[in-house]
Amino acid sequence: MTATPLSSDELRRLHAWWRACTYLGAAMIYLRDNPLLAEPLRAEQVKHRPLGHWGSSPGIAFTYAHLSRLVKRDDFPALFIAGPGHGAPGVLAPAWLEGTYGERYPDRGWGLAGLTRFCREFSFPGGSGSHCTPEVPGSIHEGGELGYSLSHAFGAAFDHPDLVVAAMVGDGEAETGPLATAWHSNKFLNPVRDGAVLPILHLNGYKIANPTLLARIPREELLALFAGYGWAPRVVEGSEPEAMHQGMAAAMEDCLAEIRAIQGAARQAGSAPAQRPRWPMVILISPKGWTGPKEADGHQVEGTWRAHQVPLSDPRHNPRHLEQLAQWLASYRPEELFTPEGRPQPELMDWAPRGERRLSACPYANGGLGRRPLERPDWRAHGVKVEFPAASSVENTAPLGAYLADLLRANPDNFRVFGPDETASNRLQAVFEASGKTWLAERRPEDGDGGHLAADGRVMEMLSEHTLEGWLEGYLLSGRHGFLSTYEAFAHVIDSMFNQHAKWLEMARAVPWRAPVAALNLLITSTVWRQDHNGFTHQDPGFLDLVVNKSPEVTRIYLPPDANCLLAVADRCLGETDVINVLVADKQSHLQYLSPEAALRHCERGIGLWDWASSDGDGEPEAVLACCGDVPTQEALAAVELLLTHFPDLRLRFVNVVDLFTLAPAEEHPHGLAERDYLSLFTADKPVVFNFHGYPWLIHRLAYRRPNHDRMHVRGYKEKGSITTPLELAMENEIDRYTLAIDILDRVPRLQVAGAHVKQALRERQQACREYAHTWGIDAPEITNWRWAGLKGR
Amino acid sequence: MTATPLSSDELRRLHAWWRACTYLGAAMIYLRDNPLLAEPLRAEQVKHRPLGHWGSSPGIAFTYAHLSRLVKRDDFPALFIAGPGHGAPGVLAPAWLEGTYGERYPDRGWGLAGLTRFCREFSFPGGSGSHCTPEVPGSIHEGGELGYSLSHAFGAAFDHPDLVVAAMVGDGEAETGPLATAWHSNKFLNPVRDGAVLPILHLNGYKIANPTLLARIPREELLALFAGYGWAPRVVEGSEPEAMHQGMAAAMEDCLAEIRAIQGAARQAGSAPAQRPRWPMVILISPKGWTGPKEADGHQVEGTWRAHQVPLSDPRHNPRHLEQLAQWLASYRPEELFTPEGRPQPELMDWAPRGERRLSACPYANGGLGRRPLERPDWRAHGVKVEFPAASSVENTAPLGAYLADLLRANPDNFRVFGPDETASNRLQAVFEASGKTWLAERRPEDGDGGHLAADGRVMEMLSEHTLEGWLEGYLLSGRHGFLSTYEAFAHVIDSMFNQHAKWLEMARAVPWRAPVAALNLLITSTVWRQDHNGFTHQDPGFLDLVVNKSPEVTRIYLPPDANCLLAVADRCLGETDVINVLVADKQSHLQYLSPEAALRHCERGIGLWDWASSDGDGEPEAVLACCGDVPTQEALAAVELLLTHFPDLRLRFVNVVDLFTLAPAEEHPHGLAERDYLSLFTADKPVVFNFHGYPWLIHRLAYRRPNHDRMHVRGYKEKGSITTPLELAMENEIDRYTLAIDILDRVPRLQVAGAHVKQALRERQQACREYAHTWGIDAPEITNWRWAGLKGR
Repeated sequence: MTATPLSSDELRRLHAWWRACTYLGAAMIYLRDNPLLAEPLRAEQVKHRPLGHWGSSPGIAFTYAHLSRLVKRDDFPALFIAGPGHGAPGVLAPAWLEGTYGERYPDRGWGLAGLTRFCREFSFPGGSGSHCTPEVPGSIHEGGELGYSLSHAFGAAFDHPDLVVAAMVGDGEAETGPLATAWHSNKFLNPVRDGAVLPILHLNGYKIANPTLLARIPREELLALFAGYGWAPRVVEGSEPEAMHQGMAAAMEDCLAEIRAIQGAARQAGSAPAQRPRWPMVILISPKGWTGPKEADGHQVEGTWRAHQVPLSDPRHNPRHLEQLAQWLASYRPEELFTPEGRPQPELMDWAPRGERRLSACPYANGGLGRRPLERPDWRAHGVKVEFPAASSVENTAPLGAYLADLLRANPDNFRVFGPDETASNRLQAVFEASGKTWLAERRPEDGDGGHLAADGRVMEMLSEHTLEGWLEGYLLSGRHGFLSTYEAFAHVIDSMFNQHAKWLEMARAVPWRAPVAALNLLITSTVWRQDHNGFTHQDPGFLDLVVNKSPEVTRIYLPPDANCLLAVADRCLGETDVINVLVADKQSHLQYLSPEAALRHCERGIGLWDWASSDGDGEPEAVLACCGDVPTQEALAAVELLLTHFPDLRLRFVNVVDLFTLAPAEEHPHGLAERDYLSLFTADKPVVFNFHGYPWLIHRLAYRRPNHDRMHVRGYKEKGSITTPLELAMENEIDRYTLAIDILDRVPRLQVAGAHVKQALRERQQACREYAHTWGIDAPEITNWRWAGLKGR
Repeated sequence: MTATPLSSDELRRLHAWWRACTYLGAAMIYLRDNPLLAEPLRAEQVKHRPLGHWGSSPGIAFTYAHLSRLVKRDDFPALFIAGPGHGAPGVLAPAWLEGTYGERYPDRGWGLAGLTRFCREFSFPGGSGSHCTPEVPGSIHEGGELGYSLSHAFGAAFDHPDLVVAAMVGDGEAETGPLATAWHSNKFLNPVRDGAVLPILHLNGYKIANPTLLARIPREELLALFAGYGWAPRVVEGSEPEAMHQGMAAAMEDCLAEIRAIQGAARQAGSAPAQRPRWPMVILISPKGWTGPKEADGHQVEGTWRAHQVPLSDPRHNPRHLEQLAQWLASYRPEELFTPEGRPQPELMDWAPRGERRLSACPYANGGLGRRPLERPDWRAHGVKVEFPAASSVENTAPLGAYLADLLRANPDNFRVFGPDETASNRLQAVFEASGKTWLAERRPEDGDGGHLAADGRVMEMLSEHTLEGWLEGYLLSGRHGFLSTYEAFAHVIDSMFNQHAKWLEMARAVPWRAPVAALNLLITSTVWRQDHNGFTHQDPGFLDLVVNKSPEVTRIYLPPDANCLLAVADRCLGETDVINVLVADKQSHLQYLSPEAALRHCERGIGLWDWASSDGDGEPEAVLACCGDVPTQEALAAVELLLTHFPDLRLRFVNVVDLFTLAPAEEHPHGLAERDYLSLFTADKPVVFNFHGYPWLIHRLAYRRPNHDRMHVRGYKEKGSITTPLELAMENEIDRYTLAIDILDRVPRLQVAGAHVKQALRERQQACREYAHTWGIDAPEITNWRWAGLKGR
């Protein structure tokens, strides 16, 4: 490792390129005109309201430049992830310099008019955002919410052996929990088949208003921490540009050499080394707001939190600020950097990468471009045989595991399965027949074959929902396919990540040059209704309430009632793009209703009348019993049997909902049923009792504008019960068969009085079931052994 | 440090106590009868469905015993936090042995009947949970969802100088993000005024189905990691009980001595040391399922993930399992540990702590007992003078900062303010006049006075919402008061923590011996409507949609429209117990409506007719314009002015909602308005246009069962817009003055046609405003300078 690898000419050009970036970064925050300072800066050329984050922008552009230098030298694909995405000027300025910005947005490219508009419309109504939004070329990571840069980087590196992902991690972001554990992702990176992740921890020193923790611990603690995380850090520290360029160039060269050495050895050997590699990383220590104003209004600015956003608050109205701004901009000597016509001086560009090697044009950052469709074998190979509905039981997620195994086999470098230590717990263990669990940390004999640990496994498990979701997002956004399962209650751990990915997708769909990426498929399992021993903390079906807040263009929710429906839905979801599919299905053994063919038909429509469970013949029913979700469907079906046993002439219609958004009006969601179809199921004027998996209000929310909504009575979870049997939990929340039967009797006029004795008998059965559960700790055999006998009995 | 500090007698007794714990732990998972093995174990004495987590229980009880030994020796208060709360047998068994369990639940205490019931009802319908639920004596941390044990521990230690909080961290939990960053909490602990946190990282080796990361990195990485986090770890490793007892006793003695040395030096000096102390911790490496069955069904069990839950799956039906269970239980020699009457052998207890020194009787774990009410000075000292409504502007949160400063002064050891690097950003900076920000890491000259860093600060800032929320929960549950502010969009980062705390409170309210704890007060600010430069990623008002899913007994939501209302609401919230108060108020400058007295009256009722903004006199209005939230209120008021300018005879009623739950029926929420009061505001049959801060559906959800609901039209956020001006964002989402005015005109029958030209003019104004914003980047002066001129103009 040479201490001064840059020749004086290389240094001069690299520094000029960086100066151009910093100049542009400041210009885009402040200027609405005169972007080259062709004339003395006047107040009216400054934006009314300068908005943006200056603080981390120079360090971001500095790193971007040094990564570009290596890319140019060695000609390899690299993806740049800006953790401090708020510092978008540090990414946008390079993208403009590289010409990519103008290629994407011709009205804001090279040339004076384009440059003026590029600056003026930054962080401006109708213009470009102040984060690395989906509109930013080369970005797969917005950095608006902090915490996910490193897990996104690893997701992008998996199965891209040629790729180097440089992940710039801010020292503010580094304090978040998700980031703090994401450093451990190095135990899951295989140097043979995966690319490399090169983290650059940017010790910028300050957050919005405070020093950062990592900048204020002793150097030996800092180095120990990253050694403990399993990294080999190189420190680059200072503020004097020449020394910093030499230091950064040396460190980056050194890191890349180490990466190539690790990869080379492993690839030559054809397998990951027995000793997990200690991958290199950079710790870049530079002043916040580097090269910006040293002071303003009597306070130090550069090197403090005051440089976080706009270092000079109001140059339009404060003449001293205006003067400082002009001096600051002039300090970069823009006349040396740009032609009078508003183009980069040609020499500025001739050292830099071209074409797809420009970081802003990295094809992996527009992952849909390279996305190969997932090979999907016929899921019916794993379909459950169902000769008679609700006569036999299967763990609903188990056949899906077998199908996922097929997918792993058919897509050996293009698909992974993710789960926080729960893949087997969620009964997807058949995947291990196709692939092990990725594990580069130590293995021991006692793990045995049953541990399924393998350096080249394709099932990703770590006890961090944040890391899993981040990996998956990075994997999808760079062009591959994946599937994540997680416990229902703890889906809330990644609520905010879901929100941000949904927002990303919604925006990305409107960006013409972005190709569609594979759907994010999230199986929510180990659900509220079967927390027999985990109890109250594990009961929360509210993730769906969040999902429906996001754009109908990108959100899909399915609650398949049985294993074949889950397979049919999962297969469909795995073929989609630019959406988030949320599948809700419990992992325990449940009754099976539909044959594979019937399931396919049912799930294609998303909602349907089950005539084998309905007694309304071809006529109008007296009431509709609707259901959505596995346990609610079972209870609804048992209620039908109870009702028809007592009132064989009751005309009851049974409707099952798989695709939750069919309930919404077609104007509100693309899956919404046409009004006529909706009425053909739910009738115009008959009472509807709806048994729902989640919080009941969600059904009202979706069906609110439907006719007949006032006659819809919804049952669902209402935060009752804890450790108990399945039936007792259902009873506590009134989604059980007895309550439903009583609900129907209460709503069919001719039975309101005539059904009184039956209602009394049903309540007595409820009480007897409760007593049985409290005595024996399990449900009564009449419940656990219950099977649907058909409308006329068997 | 002696390697073998235990005398043989001490060792014998300590080991016997631990054996009793492990015996009970296994017995409670399996036995429904014969809990002392007084007769040979029969199948029918085993539970039908053994449920519970054996894996970490022995290690938990082991640590519990060794902490108890030190407590007994040195007589100090200690709180035990079981991160792997799933291993509740490891906590419940000690609590039973100590007698606390029987004191709380006399039917499950010492004696054969009590013991039988204690075992039988563990993880059983209607019985005790399998986590450290609120029913567990000595627990403030359930451990159902993983990640928060360490932040809870620190929260409990703050301002309790005598207390030692032992936080047992599972190596599964250690992989979560929130836990991974919580280790940095040691930079916020002041040895003078705070207690100590003693983490015991339990390298139990396995999660549900995988090895843990920290158990599979080289020892030097493990030690470096914790040195890097700033801890001084002591390792205790093995499985042979005698050596492990000696090792653990030595390590715990050593840690306590080090804690006392750090505290002693600091307290003698009267100030925290210039060098941040390196607090001690223990890394306990023991086999998963320690002392349990070595194998079952031909597989190794002890020391693998197979010991995670029940090591023998079905002793009731599998005779080999029954035999193994009997042998396993007998291996602890229960006849030496318990009297035939089902009491601990007296000798077993005579070495252990008594009374409140028993960990299960720790008063800090029933924090409400020691809770001193918060001293609340009159907030009106910071009230904003409002002579005429909507005529002047103030940053809504700024006066609250001054009030919080008063609270900090009046409650110098009992109250803290929490915020993720955002206290100043959220305009609460007046708090720094009363207290600095806690900071034990390095300080530098450039921080200046403006940095407000202080070892004895009482404002807690770190860029981790998880850690902040965890600290606050621990602080409240151990008996103090606090206030947390956070950005609205990123409140979702702690969705799951909110859920779990709400569930804890709901259960705790039903536990008779638990005293009420102070309310968790959460200010959600930097809201959706003022993300002028952060844009789409920072726009999400959906936290409230989650809040309403939880029990109405513990949830409260307030949206004060101005600074005085925010003060009045905050003051009320700070006096409450056993609830979570969510306050939504933006930090930017907003119009002020109510004088302090008027605000107090308005907020006490929670909803009210603003007669100064209404034109319906004493009669019936033609329409009701309702609003909730600061920006929506401003826009609604401006709409009134527009309407009355054009139609001076329009009879309009203006209703403002502060307490969101007033909208719910009184049967559904304790704050719900009585029907009569509701109708007196909203009328029985007039159209209502409701302008809401959040997603519109929430208003429908709350008001659904109200009469007149069909005539309620709700406006709110619908995921539109990004970087833009306040008015344009409002227009994108149709909560702006023009849209509202048109909404009213559309709904008042006599104006539907007569108002056509006005509607056209309003639409043209909208367009002109949009063009202004896109030209200048700010709203037109007619918007930014708009003031309410009164019903008749000024």
